Amino acid sequence: MKLWDKGVQVDKKIEQFTVGMDRELDLELAAFDVLGSLAHIEMLQSIGLLEKKELKLIQEELRKIYSSIKNDAFVIEDGIEDVHSQIEYLLTQALGDIGKKIHSGRSRNDQVLLDLKLFTRNKLEEIVREARLLFDLLIEKSNTYKNVLIPGYTHLQVAMPSSFGLWFGSYAESLTDDLLVLQSAYKVVNQNPLGSGAGYGSSFPLNRQMTTDLLGFDNLSYNVVYAQMGRGKMEFTVLSALANMAMTIAKLAMDACLYNSQNFNFLSFPDELTTGSSIMPHKKNPDVFEVIRAHANALQMLPAQIQAVTSNLPSGYHRDYQLTKEFFMPSFDKMLSCLEMTRILLSEVKINEEVLNDERYQYLFTVEEVNKMVVDGVPFRDAYKKVGQLVEAGEFKHEGEIQHVHEGSLGNLCNDRIVCKMNETFVAFNFHKTKEAYMNLLNRI
Amino acid sequence: MKLWDKGVQVDKKIEQFTVGMDRELDLELAAFDVLGSLAHIEMLQSIGLLEKKELKLIQEELRKIYSSIKNDAFVIEDGIEDVHSQIEYLLTQALGDIGKKIHSGRSRNDQVLLDLKLFTRNKLEEIVREARLLFDLLIEKSNTYKNVLIPGYTHLQVAMPSSFGLWFGSYAESLTDDLLVLQSAYKVVNQNPLGSGAGYGSSFPLNRQMTTDLLGFDNLSYNVVYAQMGRGKMEFTVLSALANMAMTIAKLAMDACLYNSQNFNFLSFPDELTTGSSIMPHKKNPDVFEVIRAHANALQMLPAQIQAVTSNLPSGYHRDYQLTKEFFMPSFDKMLSCLEMTRILLSEVKINEEVLNDERYQYLFTVEEVNKMVVDGVPFRDAYKKVGQLVEAGEFKHEGEIQHVHEGSLGNLCNDRIVCKMNETFVAFNFHKTKEAYMNLLNRI
Amino acid sequence: MKLWDKGVQVDKKIEQFTVGMDRELDLELAAFDVLGSLAHIEMLQSIGLLEKKELKLIQEELRKIYSSIKNDAFVIEDGIEDVHSQIEYLLTQALGDIGKKIHSGRSRNDQVLLDLKLFTRNKLEEIVREARLLFDLLIEKSNTYKNVLIPGYTHLQVAMPSSFGLWFGSYAESLTDDLLVLQSAYKVVNQNPLGSGAGYGSSFPLNRQMTTDLLGFDNLSYNVVYAQMGRGKMEFTVLSALANMAMTIAKLAMDACLYNSQNFNFLSFPDELTTGSSIMPHKKNPDVFEVIRAHANALQMLPAQIQAVTSNLPSGYHRDYQLTKEFFMPSFDKMLSCLEMTRILLSEVKINEEVLNDERYQYLFTVEEVNKMVVDGVPFRDAYKKVGQLVEAGEFKHEGEIQHVHEGSLGNLCNDRIVCKMNETFVAFNFHKTKEAYMNLLNRI
Amino acid sequence: MKLWDKGVQVDKKIEQFTVGMDRELDLELAAFDVLGSLAHIEMLQSIGLLEKKELKLIQEELRKIYSSIKNDAFVIEDGIEDVHSQIEYLLTQALGDIGKKIHSGRSRNDQVLLDLKLFTRNKLEEIVREARLLFDLLIEKSNTYKNVLIPGYTHLQVAMPSSFGLWFGSYAESLTDDLLVLQSAYKVVNQNPLGSGAGYGSSFPLNRQMTTDLLGFDNLSYNVVYAQMGRGKMEFTVLSALANMAMTIAKLAMDACLYNSQNFNFLSFPDELTTGSSIMPHKKNPDVFEVIRAHANALQMLPAQIQAVTSNLPSGYHRDYQLTKEFFMPSFDKMLSCLEMTRILLSEVKINEEVLNDERYQYLFTVEEVNKMVVDGVPFRDAYKKVGQLVEAGEFKHEGEIQHVHEGSLGNLCNDRIVCKMNETFVAFNFHKTKEAYMNLLNRI
Repeated sequence: MKLWDKGVQVDKKIEQFTVGMDRELDLELAAFDVLGSLAHIEMLQSIGLLEKKELKLIQEELRKIYSSIKNDAFVIEDGIEDVHSQIEYLLTQALGDIGKKIHSGRSRNDQVLLDLKLFTRNKLEEIVREARLLFDLLIEKSNTYKNVLIPGYTHLQVAMPSSFGLWFGSYAESLTDDLLVLQSAYKVVNQNPLGSGAGYGSSFPLNRQMTTDLLGFDNLSYNVVYAQMGRGKMEFTVLSALANMAMTIAKLAMDACLYNSQNFNFLSFPDELTTGSSIMPHKKNPDVFEVIRAHANALQMLPAQIQAVTSNLPSGYHRDYQLTKEFFMPSFDKMLSCLEMTRILLSEVKINEEVLNDERYQYLFTVEEVNKMVVDGVPFRDAYKKVGQLVEAGEFKHEGEIQHVHEGSLGNLCNDRIVCKMNETFVAFNFHKTKEAYMNLLNRI
Repeated sequence: MKLWDKGVQVDKKIEQFTVGMDRELDLELAAFDVLGSLAHIEMLQSIGLLEKKELKLIQEELRKIYSSIKNDAFVIEDGIEDVHSQIEYLLTQALGDIGKKIHSGRSRNDQVLLDLKLFTRNKLEEIVREARLLFDLLIEKSNTYKNVLIPGYTHLQVAMPSSFGLWFGSYAESLTDDLLVLQSAYKVVNQNPLGSGAGYGSSFPLNRQMTTDLLGFDNLSYNVVYAQMGRGKMEFTVLSALANMAMTIAKLAMDACLYNSQNFNFLSFPDELTTGSSIMPHKKNPDVFEVIRAHANALQMLPAQIQAVTSNLPSGYHRDYQLTKEFFMPSFDKMLSCLEMTRILLSEVKINEEVLNDERYQYLFTVEEVNKMVVDGVPFRDAYKKVGQLVEAGEFKHEGEIQHVHEGSLGNLCNDRIVCKMNETFVAFNFHKTKEAYMNLLNRI
Repeated sequence: MKLWDKGVQVDKKIEQFTVGMDRELDLELAAFDVLGSLAHIEMLQSIGLLEKKELKLIQEELRKIYSSIKNDAFVIEDGIEDVHSQIEYLLTQALGDIGKKIHSGRSRNDQVLLDLKLFTRNKLEEIVREARLLFDLLIEKSNTYKNVLIPGYTHLQVAMPSSFGLWFGSYAESLTDDLLVLQSAYKVVNQNPLGSGAGYGSSFPLNRQMTTDLLGFDNLSYNVVYAQMGRGKMEFTVLSALANMAMTIAKLAMDACLYNSQNFNFLSFPDELTTGSSIMPHKKNPDVFEVIRAHANALQMLPAQIQAVTSNLPSGYHRDYQLTKEFFMPSFDKMLSCLEMTRILLSEVKINEEVLNDERYQYLFTVEEVNKMVVDGVPFRDAYKKVGQLVEAGEFKHEGEIQHVHEGSLGNLCNDRIVCKMNETFVAFNFHKTKEAYMNLLNRI
Repeated sequence: MKLWDKGVQVDKKIEQFTVGMDRELDLELAAFDVLGSLAHIEMLQSIGLLEKKELKLIQEELRKIYSSIKNDAFVIEDGIEDVHSQIEYLLTQALGDIGKKIHSGRSRNDQVLLDLKLFTRNKLEEIVREARLLFDLLIEKSNTYKNVLIPGYTHLQVAMPSSFGLWFGSYAESLTDDLLVLQSAYKVVNQNPLGSGAGYGSSFPLNRQMTTDLLGFDNLSYNVVYAQMGRGKMEFTVLSALANMAMTIAKLAMDACLYNSQNFNFLSFPDELTTGSSIMPHKKNPDVFEVIRAHANALQMLPAQIQAVTSNLPSGYHRDYQLTKEFFMPSFDKMLSCLEMTRILLSEVKINEEVLNDERYQYLFTVEEVNKMVVDGVPFRDAYKKVGQLVEAGEFKHEGEIQHVHEGSLGNLCNDRIVCKMNETFVAFNFHKTKEAYMNLLNRI
């Protein structure tokens, strides 16, 4: 029986199948692999497994490689399996046997764990910063349009008065909770797995606290079996946290698509941000928000995707974990795009300030009227009855302004306090610590 | 065309369909509904919507109801739709029109939001406490069996030496990260939605900071549209956080089932914790761990279940959210059972201290041997070659003890530092604040 | 360390935990367990493991039990674990040792497999019949309202003319595909697992073809390891098939909720099928359709729920499969309710025949106008230009009727051909075969 | 506020974001787009919207384009959005205004629907053929190793005798059910959506039955609104069907990884199909099966991924559907790889024929022994007691051969009947009909 055809060798096919997208994905890990190696060799030297001058030589080479990565000049050459091998190959080309010494006390497993954590830490910072920009815009828009009323819906039925101030502000406050959740994921990520080897540690007398400090980690993943167990679990934790933010963005996008429909007409976007039709001049399709919505909804299912791959695998490494990179690594840029696109669109949104003129919204104010009478001393039942009669007789009219004064209401948005929440969480990320650690690793002689 | 049969009225069918499991589930919310009402009326009195003596009367009745709930004497009577109606009904029975006044400035929507948050806050506390008990046991077992070696696997292949100390400890450390994530969910929950009404606030001059303080919340969900948007989203956040813990438990259960197999024989359980066969005396089925594993795996899919129901619903309340209670509310007791059952089983686990005597594990120590030679000054290539030759010749033997000294390794578990992590997170939950708030609400005259 | 409290014995707790909802769920399997036993004993007699008069005695008792089940008089008594034990207990009470003989050549495992398949076969028949009723109503409504136009949307933007005829008919045709998929699941179910024992067959000379025929199965699950492997997989197959139908219902419900909004006002429901507000007379909340939508969306996630529990379990039985019953068995009644409720609501729906009078829909017909000119010989570019100019000048008017004549269009719904599709699939289920088999088992002396 | 940086224009960013992976994915649709156009223009000519000589000119060009696609010479040029535009561009380059006429009576929407259905029909055929090859191998292996016993497990506990014959055969029979389910998905796919336009049909007098016949479809998706509704739903149906097959493969892979462990040692693979370790000579990691397992598990979650994107979108096109292509289209090649890799590995598998010699399996035969005594006339209780005593005394030995004779058991695998099931399903796909239709479209003058 002939098992393969077209002249492609089985070995080749199997290699392609098992390597999958790894070579592409690994390029994104390259810079972090170098940083991890810089910390590792400094530690190796401190415990006597590397001489000072060897250390210096390797440091110089690694920093050169780092520069080439930053200049987009780094490639994983044909026939070389992954980023770790490529970097070792470059070192050996330059330094001979000395280059191979970076391997001591390390395994491919904890190297990947480390690279993924450094990569994730970085991407989470980008996302937090981008989310902050969107937050600021939402607060600004909420303040600007705080007096523009729209109907508030329950069950998609016209219910009570709302406002663009409330609408924009609600998504701003949603992001404060999303960052709170993201921060706990960041803390889980921000623990050093280096030294766990293939999941069972090393007989070398490694100093794991030292690499922890050098890489700007908050803490160690102490137990080596747990450090390895983090593969898959860390991804799940991070993607679950991202899912909360994606949920915020998806709902905002759904609202925007609905409110842009002719049947609502609450808001619109300039032509260059919508797509039209060659024949229907009335069409301004909110394609960008639809694509945002689709991505944001898809992102929410990624934790389940991770579970599907990792569920019921006993402890210890299995190659299945490699596939999680395909779901995990691109998720950050998708989230970033969703955040950025939402910001671009909302910065250009045109608000319809006349929404409430439509007579279908006339009964929005019945509750206000009843409440006003109650505050003025009319018993509730009488107030209700009177307003009901007016409605039935078609004579209901809302007199005067709406007065909502309590915290978080139409008339008292409390945006300043929401900004406080955001600031408190943002500061606690303490991003500068990472930056300082990297500066040290890259510049120290 | 006759649309229904068997004499059941359509109205009845529709009512059953729309009410669903609400009446059963609501019983679990009853105590929290009373606590929320106690805070609400105190605030109503402070803004002049209730007289002092009315407040006192309602407080007395509500505390009686609270007692009846705690004594399992509270029921939702036939024909009464939910817990909120039942409590109002009892108040009106006792106090007439005064009883109805608790409704002012509140809607069913923010009442449910509040009850769910108080319920969740409570359940999360139970889970954290139960997880802490399991954590303590895992640390204890890790310390007890720190010198009992087992093979460590990668790819389900025998790889390198591990130990029961590492195995138990790894799950302990996993729980520290799980609590970190749970804490951020707790913070999201611990913000007051009361006063958001049906999602668009109230024209009454409510004092939301006051109810926030009375109920022991950390903060407010300020924006009323966001407070309502929390329905579904809060559930997603909490279930996602629980999913991390479920993942830890599921993997532990999978390991336990595997290690209990005759093909591993690392551990076993006393007869009363396994099921046997009437005919096969060798069988000790680990049914309890299988059921734990199944529940823990199912729990991880609940965030996706929430997304399935809530995805692409525009902002504002929709009755769809009611269904999320069916997934959300029972999840806590499932998690609690999984934690408790795991603890009971592990407290009785019998460890096989002779695992490594089996000759299939003879090559576990090849890496150790190579590393030892390297530390002694033999170049890696020569060491590797020598050990390889011994293996090939069938003469490989591991001499002496294994020496793993770095942080988190076989010989240096760092369990004390893992306990520190746990303590730090545990204390930050600050559970006593809630308890004090409740005491005040229930005892104040 | 004290592991349990409140005086509840650990054994009791463990029993409750492992039994879970089994006793409740098993009641639904009771009738099928009896039918399976009737087939099994007839076969046992045919291979000499039961005497003729023993057979007759057991048959009589089993038929009595069947009657008691049908009269709701059957219970699983306290202390009896499941339905299989209860039935054996009743037989032994009545017949002594003879009652125990039904066990020969059977294991709990293949008994559950069989019961679940018979139960599922039955429930699928109910669903197919209920779906057929809904289909018939949709076709009827489509025919009735074939001339009532509504706007068709793309991107939630008003696009081109559609009609209630198209809208109702689209969901009817969707159900034809759903039944096609359900039929393949039915065929997977309709294969006999009895005789597979605990997954490794039996050393008794069972005649599995005979029980296959007696139970009205189409075929056998031959390989005994595969028969056992069907546990979990069969549930996944069936729930995946149901998910397609749930998707149809969920979209219909979403449309109905949207079209019932004041912002669309395409349709409405009588007061008794909506919920109102005590104060807002304009509100007619489509709660029933919201609950339908929620259930239908939740049902679509059940295959993932099954995967979460069963993923990566090696072949052979694990108790994890028990938990799948909790997701699987109630799903049918949920689907049935969704279908029935949709039918009740649509049978009472009030159609707004004046939708298109709203001026926001004025540009719906631009494409029609262009196409008409093209058919009349005007070059497309000229036609497009002319209509564009009219639109821009605010002078566009659609003259005359719309003429859509091709298959499946506004003017030619092809509902008769859609009914043919439905009939063809419906007939192929061949439900009477099962019914006849059951009649034989229950009446034969 | 500056919304974008790095000199990239917003328009460019937005275009990249909305186009996504479409240009890459569309290349796979190119051949099908041409086939669809060939059918469409032949129909257009038949209803007078194209002249005979115009038809001939376009046919010639389209066949040239088809050839260039088959020769990998076709590209989507920079600045051209998708495959449909590229093909129209080529036609217009060659034929001027005549080339544009293929657009009449068609919209981008039904063109994509059609292309996706033709693409899917083709990919499903490839999968069915590849699955058939694997099935044949499994049957062959089952027959070859029908007498090699292995332990059968329940609860991962050694239970009763099984065999490689049963093990291989179980996965073969599993594939027969998988193809049954896939066939219903194929039937759903095999219905023509062309003519549904943007989801509301066309005012041109299209002949949809004619294109149905020309493209070898079984039937039409009549209702144009339903045809459009198929977007997302068709993908869900097909991926759900694929998920069943993926479940089969995932379990096989899990078994293979487990059985390849030193703790089982039932089977192994030649060195070139495993990966080793540079230092541990005993390691033969089953990486390929791990990657298969990971992909097969991930595939099962894709229906949930589709639901995540499409859930609660009202009827009518939304751009969200574009994203479903990213999940949908690559799934087929993943499934194909999993099937092919499994086949390659199993064709080289080395079976351990001495598994049962290990003494841990000694009690496998207790049930056999009891049953044998029962058949010989010993009452069950006595037989059970006697065997139990022997086991307890350590004197249990299994005498003689095992005799399993019933259908599907160890001794009577019924592989011939399983092959019949497969043949019956395979033939019913009727693949040649499609092939003939395409031949006609491509060769007719």
